Amino acid sequence: MKITLKDGSVLEYNEAKTAGDITKDISMGLFRNATCCKINGEVKDLRTVIDADATLEILTFDDEDGRKAFNHTASHIMAQAVKRLYPEAKLTIGPAIDNGFYYDFDVEKSFSPDDLAKIEAEMKKIVKENPEIKRFELPVDEAIALMESKNEPYKIELIKEHAEKGEPISFYEQGEFTELCAGPHLMDMKVVKAFKLTQCTGAYWRGDEKNKMLCRVYGTAFPKASMLEEHLAALEEAKKRDHNKLGRELELFTTVDYIGQGLPILLPKGTKIIQTLQRWVEDEEEKRGWLLTKTPLMAKSDLYKISGHWDHYKEGMFVLGDEEKDKEVFALRPMTCPFQYQAYLNRARSYRDLPLRYDETSTLFRNEASGEMHGLIRVRQFTISEGHLMCRPDQLEDEFKACLELTNYMMDVLGLKEDLTYRFSQWDPEDTGKYIGTKEQWDEAQGVMKTILDDLGIDYKVGIGEAAFYGPKLDIQIKNVFGKEDTLVTIQIDQMLAEKFGMEYVDKDGQKKNPYIIHRTSIGCYERTLALLIEKYAGAFPTWLSPVQVKFLPVADRHQDYCREVMSKLQAAGVRCELDDRSEKTGFKIRSAQMEKVPYMIIVGDKDIEANTISVRSRKNGDEGATSVDEFLSRIVTEIATKAR
Amino acid sequence: MKITLKDGSVLEYNEAKTAGDITKDISMGLFRNATCCKINGEVKDLRTVIDADATLEILTFDDEDGRKAFNHTASHIMAQAVKRLYPEAKLTIGPAIDNGFYYDFDVEKSFSPDDLAKIEAEMKKIVKENPEIKRFELPVDEAIALMESKNEPYKIELIKEHAEKGEPISFYEQGEFTELCAGPHLMDMKVVKAFKLTQCTGAYWRGDEKNKMLCRVYGTAFPKASMLEEHLAALEEAKKRDHNKLGRELELFTTVDYIGQGLPILLPKGTKIIQTLQRWVEDEEEKRGWLLTKTPLMAKSDLYKISGHWDHYKEGMFVLGDEEKDKEVFALRPMTCPFQYQAYLNRARSYRDLPLRYDETSTLFRNEASGEMHGLIRVRQFTISEGHLMCRPDQLEDEFKACLELTNYMMDVLGLKEDLTYRFSQWDPEDTGKYIGTKEQWDEAQGVMKTILDDLGIDYKVGIGEAAFYGPKLDIQIKNVFGKEDTLVTIQIDQMLAEKFGMEYVDKDGQKKNPYIIHRTSIGCYERTLALLIEKYAGAFPTWLSPVQVKFLPVADRHQDYCREVMSKLQAAGVRCELDDRSEKTGFKIRSAQMEKVPYMIIVGDKDIEANTISVRSRKNGDEGATSVDEFLSRIVTEIATKAR
Repeated sequence: MKITLKDGSVLEYNEAKTAGDITKDISMGLFRNATCCKINGEVKDLRTVIDADATLEILTFDDEDGRKAFNHTASHIMAQAVKRLYPEAKLTIGPAIDNGFYYDFDVEKSFSPDDLAKIEAEMKKIVKENPEIKRFELPVDEAIALMESKNEPYKIELIKEHAEKGEPISFYEQGEFTELCAGPHLMDMKVVKAFKLTQCTGAYWRGDEKNKMLCRVYGTAFPKASMLEEHLAALEEAKKRDHNKLGRELELFTTVDYIGQGLPILLPKGTKIIQTLQRWVEDEEEKRGWLLTKTPLMAKSDLYKISGHWDHYKEGMFVLGDEEKDKEVFALRPMTCPFQYQAYLNRARSYRDLPLRYDETSTLFRNEASGEMHGLIRVRQFTISEGHLMCRPDQLEDEFKACLELTNYMMDVLGLKEDLTYRFSQWDPEDTGKYIGTKEQWDEAQGVMKTILDDLGIDYKVGIGEAAFYGPKLDIQIKNVFGKEDTLVTIQIDQMLAEKFGMEYVDKDGQKKNPYIIHRTSIGCYERTLALLIEKYAGAFPTWLSPVQVKFLPVADRHQDYCREVMSKLQAAGVRCELDDRSEKTGFKIRSAQMEKVPYMIIVGDKDIEANTISVRSRKNGDEGATSVDEFLSRIVTEIATKAR
Repeated sequence: MKITLKDGSVLEYNEAKTAGDITKDISMGLFRNATCCKINGEVKDLRTVIDADATLEILTFDDEDGRKAFNHTASHIMAQAVKRLYPEAKLTIGPAIDNGFYYDFDVEKSFSPDDLAKIEAEMKKIVKENPEIKRFELPVDEAIALMESKNEPYKIELIKEHAEKGEPISFYEQGEFTELCAGPHLMDMKVVKAFKLTQCTGAYWRGDEKNKMLCRVYGTAFPKASMLEEHLAALEEAKKRDHNKLGRELELFTTVDYIGQGLPILLPKGTKIIQTLQRWVEDEEEKRGWLLTKTPLMAKSDLYKISGHWDHYKEGMFVLGDEEKDKEVFALRPMTCPFQYQAYLNRARSYRDLPLRYDETSTLFRNEASGEMHGLIRVRQFTISEGHLMCRPDQLEDEFKACLELTNYMMDVLGLKEDLTYRFSQWDPEDTGKYIGTKEQWDEAQGVMKTILDDLGIDYKVGIGEAAFYGPKLDIQIKNVFGKEDTLVTIQIDQMLAEKFGMEYVDKDGQKKNPYIIHRTSIGCYERTLALLIEKYAGAFPTWLSPVQVKFLPVADRHQDYCREVMSKLQAAGVRCELDDRSEKTGFKIRSAQMEKVPYMIIVGDKDIEANTISVRSRKNGDEGATSVDEFLSRIVTEIATKAR
């Protein structure tokens, strides 16, 4: 058999061999670093036996999937330690995640920080013992019997599920510890040199509020102590930047229990940032030919039945009323599409009218469980710059490109562009019930989108089953400060909803045709974008976005009038100012303005009044000395107008 | 007995007399014009016998209440005519309304325009016959027997209700026609000289969708034929201005059955006006020290239970979920108050922090019946400039005054100020269950408000039972083009909700106190304001509000490039332009721009390009001849900046 490696070189064997043994043949150094491998593109355990021609790629901690295998083994080591210390704990699941792993245990009492320290110590002992990691498969009944003997009810539930789906039932064993697991895992646990259990939270079994609350222990693991230290330092920094903490400290937003989770209250400073962003986005879009609409936030179920939301998205919607009892049932909108289409439908359209671009500063609602809510990122209500563009087939590529360019422009101005990655979200041909339209329509829409993305040279990952129910998407992804990835912006191609709503145009040839529709956001949800900006800038926003741009600090009360005079001049030019008129020492006032991360302080004392100047202290350079009002005004007005970072 | 007239003069009588006879004593001319009267301030029939000292005011068609008596009698004449022509028609109610009257009949088939003409002819016959109008009262059982003999089931229902409330059961009789009615009515129907039945619509019995649909005939009546003609001409003009017709024609908004009534879709041109208004309002309020917030559009029932909305306003709210079944029940907000209070509650406040003024461009929801919806004026969802101001008692008057001045300023800019009237809306001490708080609290709040209104010299009417459930209001009223009055703006004083939400400040004396809260809008609901502006200007908005400010009309296709060049220059200065690039004759394009009521057209032909000029045609002056681009630009930019009307 021929084994083709990543670099194109080929190894030949006359007999079946494990991937691990082949790795040893390549280099013992590589084997020591190897965590798992890809055989014919699929992630596999190094224990996997290869007995036919195949491509083979060896993965290490530096590869995303390689790191996952590493963390997954660390999770097993933790579970083994927990079972040693708390034999009554029931095992459930324990996957690798970005930057680490977790394991959910069913225990009587949640673990304390002291408990976590004990578990960590036990993990170190296990790694030192270094039991061999073995993989084996069992028939269903034997697998169940094994887990019954260990009194692991959750594992039995999982085995039954795997069996139903016809999946193999595999176990990994290390010393006295045996775990139902699909793998892959490390060949040898001694490389798990540095780890830390970071926190313990509650989590429902299978994420369902109706199930039992489990105890979830998070951890992170590395092959070197220095890497762990670096990671923990980065985590500390991230915590400081966490928008859910910093955004509240800076009085940008708050939440209130009796209003509800996922319904943030934007305080004046947060609202000022959102207002500034909204106006900018609306104006930039208008320049590019987008027409703003303002459509209702709810509609009768009739609308959603036409659009398909009633059949394909009802679970995610807030419904008002009861179909059995009420004459009219309304639902809050989860998307703007079917509302904005009404502007198109308001009169007959010709090919000459296209493209028609409608945008909206649109509030949407998603009925999600309280447990999933997080600050400004996972919310039940949000406002998004959402647009729909109707065009002819010959206009599709240019218009798609223009949508992408608009987003790139905005992300560049905000300083988020370098953090973006792209995902081409496609339907799941194995689960067609989730979508409207035929295979042919999906093939066509995805084909068109692929051509466009490839023409634009976009480096994307494919996300199977991540499409909207009506069409494929380009998702523009970003990670928050903790490394958790979310979709910031999406651009979608839809050739189905126009037909459902009877949207037509009369083409050159006199025929009525359905336009293509591009669904897109430009800046995304304002709440989420604000969260990312808080974390990106650690609250020290560029001046144009700062809620307070200049803080006036009179040295004594007698300097207040002069401050007010200068302030009026700045305010007349649109600069946002605040006066700190408290009877406090200047040092105290400076520290207080620093805490608020104000870009400029203007300190006024006797000398300034005498010389008709102001003393500027900038966030960037510290004390800048005295300057004239006009000079400072011209500087800050330019800085704001150019949206300098 | 002494009868004091309006002019202060006193008539003395030794015996009881009817108001009508006393009127004759004053002047036979006045008696001929009299429709009813006010005895001791209460509107009464001229048939009323006066037997003690009293004040007496004689009302004619020129008085609002006098006109009502006139129209009410006209409504009876119509009902008599209907019963003659359609004896099976069942009588229900037929009140006077602004500018006319209506009567709801239970009939098998709605009346056609031909039917209305027949009814009108029969009314003329009745007036010519001029049967005497007599009033009499009956005990309940006799009253019911009388209506049973005439087979009027709705009247029997009404008699039973009056009886329950202990009200007298009075009838008015004219010829063969007898009607259950409290009056007052004219002494003589021959003065009903000119009338017109204007339309026939459906209306539910008692306005309740669950009841039977009745046939409502509207009419209008006058003492002179010339007055009717004038009124009908004004009505024709009003119909042309009707925002619900003109607003659709100008593509400002639309509604769609499958979305629902009362949920207007603002099209790009309507949205542009709203956006312009919103930014202006937000900026003007910011200048005056208001801080913008952005709070959620829904909350858990817990919030509304604290605020009192759950007990006092639930019927008007859209509720999501079922208290019996769901863990969390949400409701869409009908008002911003309890949400915006959270900004105040976000930190401890001192007397030095007050007043604190929060405003919001706030979307609200009211669960009203579909039948009550009307264009942009009666809607289920609307956006309002809503604010709440927390202040100390010593700041209340100044702050209230500033709120009123802000509204006046805005209404003046919009050109609506001269159309406003004021209503001081108070609680109903007879129906205290509708309100929170004690009589003492209401007396105090209303007393404070009365002092302020009187100090400001505001000419107001008192509206008993029109207060909010938490406090008295100053309602600023306006009539639409058909004369129907609505509230445009309200300013309220509230001393109860701060206590309910635990909103406090530490006063100079170190004591914690609850602030006064002023609830207010400045411009009102944007949708309603837009409706009034459409009607006020018949769609020809001042330039600053016009969705398209300049329309370019190239005489031939070869003039398009020059148009585009000039357009870019104007657009760069923020002027909203459109190019009519259709291959149509200039005359056609001009008429089309006139239909759109665009303030300026710029017509470009060969001569303009040669001379480097543009030809301006304004909505106001028509053809203005050639001018330079710079001159026109400076003119229109000034016009927009000054918001000239």
